[in-house]
Amino acid sequence: MQVREILEKLKNAEISVDIALETLKDVSIADLGHTKLDLDRTARTGFGEVVFAQGKTPQQLVDIFVELKKQKINALATRVSEDSAKVLAQCFEDIKIDNLSHTAVLYSSEVPQPTGLIAIVTAGTSDMSVAIEAKAVAEFFGNKVECFFDCGVAGLHRLLSNLENIRKANVVIAIAGMEGALASVVAGLVKTPVIAVPTSVGYGANFQGLSALLSMINSCANGVSVVNIDNGYGAAYIASVINRQSK
Amino acid sequence: MQVREILEKLKNAEISVDIALETLKDVSIADLGHTKLDLDRTARTGFGEVVFAQGKTPQQLVDIFVELKKQKINALATRVSEDSAKVLAQCFEDIKIDNLSHTAVLYSSEVPQPTGLIAIVTAGTSDMSVAIEAKAVAEFFGNKVECFFDCGVAGLHRLLSNLENIRKANVVIAIAGMEGALASVVAGLVKTPVIAVPTSVGYGANFQGLSALLSMINSCANGVSVVNIDNGYGAAYIASVINRQSK
Amino acid sequence: MQVREILEKLKNAEISVDIALETLKDVSIADLGHTKLDLDRTARTGFGEVVFAQGKTPQQLVDIFVELKKQKINALATRVSEDSAKVLAQCFEDIKIDNLSHTAVLYSSEVPQPTGLIAIVTAGTSDMSVAIEAKAVAEFFGNKVECFFDCGVAGLHRLLSNLENIRKANVVIAIAGMEGALASVVAGLVKTPVIAVPTSVGYGANFQGLSALLSMINSCANGVSVVNIDNGYGAAYIASVINRQSK
Amino acid sequence: MQVREILEKLKNAEISVDIALETLKDVSIADLGHTKLDLDRTARTGFGEVVFAQGKTPQQLVDIFVELKKQKINALATRVSEDSAKVLAQCFEDIKIDNLSHTAVLYSSEVPQPTGLIAIVTAGTSDMSVAIEAKAVAEFFGNKVECFFDCGVAGLHRLLSNLENIRKANVVIAIAGMEGALASVVAGLVKTPVIAVPTSVGYGANFQGLSALLSMINSCANGVSVVNIDNGYGAAYIASVINRQSK
Amino acid sequence: MQVREILEKLKNAEISVDIALETLKDVSIADLGHTKLDLDRTARTGFGEVVFAQGKTPQQLVDIFVELKKQKINALATRVSEDSAKVLAQCFEDIKIDNLSHTAVLYSSEVPQPTGLIAIVTAGTSDMSVAIEAKAVAEFFGNKVECFFDCGVAGLHRLLSNLENIRKANVVIAIAGMEGALASVVAGLVKTPVIAVPTSVGYGANFQGLSALLSMINSCANGVSVVNIDNGYGAAYIASVINRQSK
Amino acid sequence: MQVREILEKLKNAEISVDIALETLKDVSIADLGHTKLDLDRTARTGFGEVVFAQGKTPQQLVDIFVELKKQKINALATRVSEDSAKVLAQCFEDIKIDNLSHTAVLYSSEVPQPTGLIAIVTAGTSDMSVAIEAKAVAEFFGNKVECFFDCGVAGLHRLLSNLENIRKANVVIAIAGMEGALASVVAGLVKTPVIAVPTSVGYGANFQGLSALLSMINSCANGVSVVNIDNGYGAAYIASVINRQSK
Amino acid sequence: MQVREILEKLKNAEISVDIALETLKDVSIADLGHTKLDLDRTARTGFGEVVFAQGKTPQQLVDIFVELKKQKINALATRVSEDSAKVLAQCFEDIKIDNLSHTAVLYSSEVPQPTGLIAIVTAGTSDMSVAIEAKAVAEFFGNKVECFFDCGVAGLHRLLSNLENIRKANVVIAIAGMEGALASVVAGLVKTPVIAVPTSVGYGANFQGLSALLSMINSCANGVSVVNIDNGYGAAYIASVINRQSK
Amino acid sequence: MQVREILEKLKNAEISVDIALETLKDVSIADLGHTKLDLDRTARTGFGEVVFAQGKTPQQLVDIFVELKKQKINALATRVSEDSAKVLAQCFEDIKIDNLSHTAVLYSSEVPQPTGLIAIVTAGTSDMSVAIEAKAVAEFFGNKVECFFDCGVAGLHRLLSNLENIRKANVVIAIAGMEGALASVVAGLVKTPVIAVPTSVGYGANFQGLSALLSMINSCANGVSVVNIDNGYGAAYIASVINRQSK
Repeated sequence: MQVREILEKLKNAEISVDIALETLKDVSIADLGHTKLDLDRTARTGFGEVVFAQGKTPQQLVDIFVELKKQKINALATRVSEDSAKVLAQCFEDIKIDNLSHTAVLYSSEVPQPTGLIAIVTAGTSDMSVAIEAKAVAEFFGNKVECFFDCGVAGLHRLLSNLENIRKANVVIAIAGMEGALASVVAGLVKTPVIAVPTSVGYGANFQGLSALLSMINSCANGVSVVNIDNGYGAAYIASVINRQSK
Repeated sequence: MQVREILEKLKNAEISVDIALETLKDVSIADLGHTKLDLDRTARTGFGEVVFAQGKTPQQLVDIFVELKKQKINALATRVSEDSAKVLAQCFEDIKIDNLSHTAVLYSSEVPQPTGLIAIVTAGTSDMSVAIEAKAVAEFFGNKVECFFDCGVAGLHRLLSNLENIRKANVVIAIAGMEGALASVVAGLVKTPVIAVPTSVGYGANFQGLSALLSMINSCANGVSVVNIDNGYGAAYIASVINRQSK
Repeated sequence: MQVREILEKLKNAEISVDIALETLKDVSIADLGHTKLDLDRTARTGFGEVVFAQGKTPQQLVDIFVELKKQKINALATRVSEDSAKVLAQCFEDIKIDNLSHTAVLYSSEVPQPTGLIAIVTAGTSDMSVAIEAKAVAEFFGNKVECFFDCGVAGLHRLLSNLENIRKANVVIAIAGMEGALASVVAGLVKTPVIAVPTSVGYGANFQGLSALLSMINSCANGVSVVNIDNGYGAAYIASVINRQSK
Repeated sequence: MQVREILEKLKNAEISVDIALETLKDVSIADLGHTKLDLDRTARTGFGEVVFAQGKTPQQLVDIFVELKKQKINALATRVSEDSAKVLAQCFEDIKIDNLSHTAVLYSSEVPQPTGLIAIVTAGTSDMSVAIEAKAVAEFFGNKVECFFDCGVAGLHRLLSNLENIRKANVVIAIAGMEGALASVVAGLVKTPVIAVPTSVGYGANFQGLSALLSMINSCANGVSVVNIDNGYGAAYIASVINRQSK
Repeated sequence: MQVREILEKLKNAEISVDIALETLKDVSIADLGHTKLDLDRTARTGFGEVVFAQGKTPQQLVDIFVELKKQKINALATRVSEDSAKVLAQCFEDIKIDNLSHTAVLYSSEVPQPTGLIAIVTAGTSDMSVAIEAKAVAEFFGNKVECFFDCGVAGLHRLLSNLENIRKANVVIAIAGMEGALASVVAGLVKTPVIAVPTSVGYGANFQGLSALLSMINSCANGVSVVNIDNGYGAAYIASVINRQSK
Repeated sequence: MQVREILEKLKNAEISVDIALETLKDVSIADLGHTKLDLDRTARTGFGEVVFAQGKTPQQLVDIFVELKKQKINALATRVSEDSAKVLAQCFEDIKIDNLSHTAVLYSSEVPQPTGLIAIVTAGTSDMSVAIEAKAVAEFFGNKVECFFDCGVAGLHRLLSNLENIRKANVVIAIAGMEGALASVVAGLVKTPVIAVPTSVGYGANFQGLSALLSMINSCANGVSVVNIDNGYGAAYIASVINRQSK
Repeated sequence: MQVREILEKLKNAEISVDIALETLKDVSIADLGHTKLDLDRTARTGFGEVVFAQGKTPQQLVDIFVELKKQKINALATRVSEDSAKVLAQCFEDIKIDNLSHTAVLYSSEVPQPTGLIAIVTAGTSDMSVAIEAKAVAEFFGNKVECFFDCGVAGLHRLLSNLENIRKANVVIAIAGMEGALASVVAGLVKTPVIAVPTSVGYGANFQGLSALLSMINSCANGVSVVNIDNGYGAAYIASVINRQSK
Repeated sequence: MQVREILEKLKNAEISVDIALETLKDVSIADLGHTKLDLDRTARTGFGEVVFAQGKTPQQLVDIFVELKKQKINALATRVSEDSAKVLAQCFEDIKIDNLSHTAVLYSSEVPQPTGLIAIVTAGTSDMSVAIEAKAVAEFFGNKVECFFDCGVAGLHRLLSNLENIRKANVVIAIAGMEGALASVVAGLVKTPVIAVPTSVGYGANFQGLSALLSMINSCANGVSVVNIDNGYGAAYIASVINRQSK
């Protein structure tokens, strides 16, 4: 723990009180002007760094990747626009751009070995883009991932016929738009935690995902908790934490 | 058709143009001051008259039942308060008060013979009160009704084990609060129309039934249409119409 | 019933328990990777297969049509974009593209003979696109369809003058945006079920169809149930089911 | 105009600039501590003073009536609670308490002669309480008022048979809960302005009157404008202004 | 009254009952397929016909103008797109296109003489487009109109300095976005009815005009009623009705 | 797995196909009329049975506890009203009523040994009731639980001073009303999953917990997922699943 | 600064690193079990401690007052229920209960001398309760306070005639329900900051204060910022901070 | 005070009552047709004039700048589109266009000397654009401004390490999207007023800034008040007022 280190130095009279106070301020932050990179996070969390690219300029993304590379921290950017993807590809030889999941990965440190299984189940074909983002993130964090697409509750066969494999996972990510019933049905059939991701897929009274969100939050089944609409990244993160600490 | 009758009389010079115009105004309405009873409705629709008791005083209800009895029209009141129930029981010897469904029935004409089956499926124990109202109304309209309580999707067994019987109905009423997923799952399993009733059962982000309503309106399954939150009566009405005209 | 078949085979020792379990999983599903086609649905429901094209790539649509053609299942796609329409037209000689209703139909099996009447009534000229989708779907499912456009309640004459014909239908689809009053007025005038479709037509406090949706869900008239905003397809589906089972 | 008077006095050197400034402040206000009575309003508007009793204590109401009586201004209180009604009746001999409309009237000046007609049309029996408030207010302001209760659009006969009389009015107040379609239908049938009052009558997705409010605001008919939910007073006020200035 | 005419003919045996019934259906409607023109409306209301162009194709607009011209009915289209404007200008020599108010006017009958004054007051510069639509409509209906732009309550001087002229009108249209306070302040200062138009001007928690709508519906001032967000047309219509019947 | 057992018997000709089909229906359900108890759930999930008492009558609760006792299944009821608590205490000698958490526990089988730690952190004193429900449920499921009350972010000291102990848990439940910021701050400080529970604590624009719900769903911190407003039970359930499968 | 003190001691070897770490945890917190009192807050902020009594039991309030008295910290409780008020009065001789503002004050340290002026302006009589809470809080914090009740914009005279006095304040608290226009009008007339408090006063589309909140957040006037609905306390707090640091 | 001047002239018989009345109308307004410029505002408020450019045409902006230059009033336009920026740059030699903050400044009078410090703290990189607008406005008004970007609560270090500098300011502007927790955490750490600006940064259940707005309005911390979503200008205005009057 870095704070302890500073305090130890202070106790040993290696540094003054004023310097201790000053040093405590700058622990683990690289200030790029527009962004304050938390360089200590990888150490704290055990995961590589993920950058939310939406709303950042290509230049800002490059700055961030340069710094993370310098610090030897593995980096993944999500929601990378086509323009940003092009710029990143030009600037970094080893970067892996994935146009389906809109992610970019740059390994500057050891690549984690996949362990433990996360199952990603989607209701419809259109929910696939959220699932693919979740898959990319979970794999970046060192999880095995298996996807089960188009298993919506309107045709239960499609879900039930995959149940045995879904049950092998330590955690299930259930992704659905429209009425979001998938989360409840899946949670009634497995023993593991279910992370539900409402999607904005649908139209009309779906209100950009509100119906699926409310549906999942009100789930009558046990073992469901919910992340933001279309938040494949967030679901993958918490699923990775659960998976990592699973027996 | 009464309008034709009036026109025939006019053509036959039995009445004047002015009288024809005047008569057209008063066709089939009994004006009780507070309420205009549509006496022609039973003839038009083939169903007895249903009175929404909520928001009406006991005296207004008595007035309405007196008039309907005089006109020999079968009458059912829904959402009858305890107070109103007592007053009605005192005023009408033959009235049947049902405290579970909060209904009161007074037959002044022939009792319809039950034909055709309506299935009522509920998600949880707490949705039962809406189901019982729907059952009372559907039976008053001359339908056979079978109820399947507590078949929520969190334990699919409970629904699947009743499926064979549910499929015997001409129309299914699916009643659920919380995330309302029942409607989608049922509709994926039957060939008949599903009338979905969201209920206000639940708490928090259920927002008094909004989550179940949005869920049902956004159903990914075919053959679902929706009535108002807690509207057991409305579901029973349209189900009765469908049942009556079914082969 | 296919499940029974498998069980019979098991009983007759034609297959093992493990094979029975395995086989039960794959009943009636064609897995295209992105989409799990429920090949049994047409057998179960008696209707051709409908594909919701919005949010699917042209390639995914082609995959689906190829598979359905192979399985000799009639197919209709709704909400087909101009791009997808072009690709489909190039890939399938016999496909019928309808640019007004944004649908594509490919018959690979017998074309159903139209029977029974569905009436589609719209409030304004701008609601027509939803009505045309509903008409295309209902005709694909083998219903006779008659449309009554621009019959909004602000000029009752327009509705009343068509009433006799509307009453000939087994079910009425009422389509309206803005305040959605059409559904209540129509339902007060017919004996058949009314399927109400709120549309996003309007502006301001219409909130993309919310006002019409709430209006229809709260209808004071009997016999109304509601589908999603702009959901011409969904209304046509349930109307087709009701029509098919009508005397 | 009082401001002009003060300026005239100033010009004529009857008062100083400082006094003019000071006097301008206190024009027409009686400050009761809790309430600042605008004593000039009756002069300005030509109507008696109306007090919104809800949220005021009986004592505050008495203070207000005492002051208005002193100033010889006719006064009407709306939404008077039972408790307040009792206290007012004890304090003022000539006050007229109306328990149906929850109003109290105290004439301290000339009673206005009723002229011009306002028609009040309601959709259902339960909307009557709002209508009765509107009637009491409109009569206090010196209008002739005729009420047409229970004319909802689910049974058009009830409305059409009263149409001739409704058309005699200079302005129509249309009061409806649930889906609020009455306003649109009425406005399509009359030439005069329609003031629409949504009511909180209904349940479920009515959301305490929101559905009726949105419905009326989005009316497809010409000549409709809307006041707050359950605001019988507000509708009566603007209707009175229109009626007064009508030929 | 046309219905009376038909009845008279029937009485005089000039037509049969069946023909009378049939004729009653087609009274005053020109059915263009996409649109049912209510040709009787001008006779009934005394105003020219207004067409809501948004959501209609140029061809549909041309059809409508051709029919109205044939029927010698003055016509105004609102929310005319640039494309539609061009097509209309090519098809009708005498049509007046106004690019500011997005309207098109074609007089085929007498031009009404402007009488009575309507005042239009706006809060900000950005509300001007709604005001200009209202002005075009009100002038088409034969009213004198005076506009008072940019009189928002943040600088009361701007409103107060125009008050004397505003008070000369028979009715005031108050147009404001953001917090919509203008309606309350204006209504507190005039004796005439105030028609409030919330606009979608603003951003953030304005929610496309919702804040202004709620503000105006909840106005603490007397004599305010409200039309839809950005509905300059609707405000002009009801203001015209009030103005026409004013002394 | 029970289904396999039935299939095995069928294969071994111990039962017929019809009996197999019939038996599959009734697996694990005790039908009490009002409630279908899923007797297999404890076996499937490894947890005792939890009954949501709100909306159930005392008699229904007694029926459920009698059945569960008969089946030797440990039972916990949440949201037990005072009335129900009294009745349960009279009917079951060994039941433990806890008035603070509104729970009732009846052990009919082995009591699970607490293992693994769940930390429950609340923002304010008023969130305590939700926390206590969560604690009762988690302990019933066999978890060690430690509570940290009143650690809201307005005074960071209160949270930071408990951080070391909070970090010892396998999963953290963060409970907060008002602006619900606690979840984000906690998640930024721990490595374990954070289950966020919005509460209805607050007033005004809190809208019964909506503000906290939206806040938590939109958390900028990693590792947060959310359950329903005031849903202490649901948080405890998923936390228990995570804790059980943690190393 | 206490943290510095601990660090100084560490440097001077008066305490060990472990003790330093431990001590940093407990700085300034009195843990009452249900509540963690931030005893350092008064030192940090310069204000006495305020306790939000709603949702706390009388016993919890007594615990808190006992501790604060012991620490010689002046204490104010807001939203004190009648029951709690009685218990507090019994336990503390010197406590001042104010039934109008629902507050209780116990001075255990010096009473602050009022300096600087805060003006509180309300729109209507019914907003007074929020104003009185704000007044009690502001006075407890050592501000001079002047109230201007019932100055709503529907009668501008009432506001304008008090303007000169309102302008003497360093900060204005504007309190209004319904359409909340007061904040905009006041802010257009003063040079100081305006803290706007929406109230839940009103009905219907007021939605418990939402209309006033949105109105104030969207204010077209400069210098307005907003606190929660009915949050008299919060407005008083920030106004006190502004007042204290004003010249 | 100008009004006093006019009254003095009247008293001295230099002008007539009618002229006095007339003159009072035109005090301090330059009417450009589309816009009424409040020329007195700078005198009243002590700040230069700020123009909200969004929704105004380039020509209207030029008109406004010409007039303000003529009146020797410093002017700042916010939300200037690229097109408008180009036109303004062509028309005014000395104008300063800032493409980052989308502002344009034209000094026609003395440039204010920066005094007092405003701290602007943002949660994420994407909130920077709102912060930059606030900075531009605050500097135009003569404040010293220091920005602290990307200090979101998910990594408390980033905020805490800047705390000492943030505390030097007289007022803090806290800008955050998503869950908006920053405002509460900052307010718990400083003694000065915190003006919170919710931003529309985020997605899904953020609902264009609603989540952050509700979060900030419900802040559990003292000393927070809130302006509109993305309203950097508004926050800067009130912060400038507070800063100016701070000791």
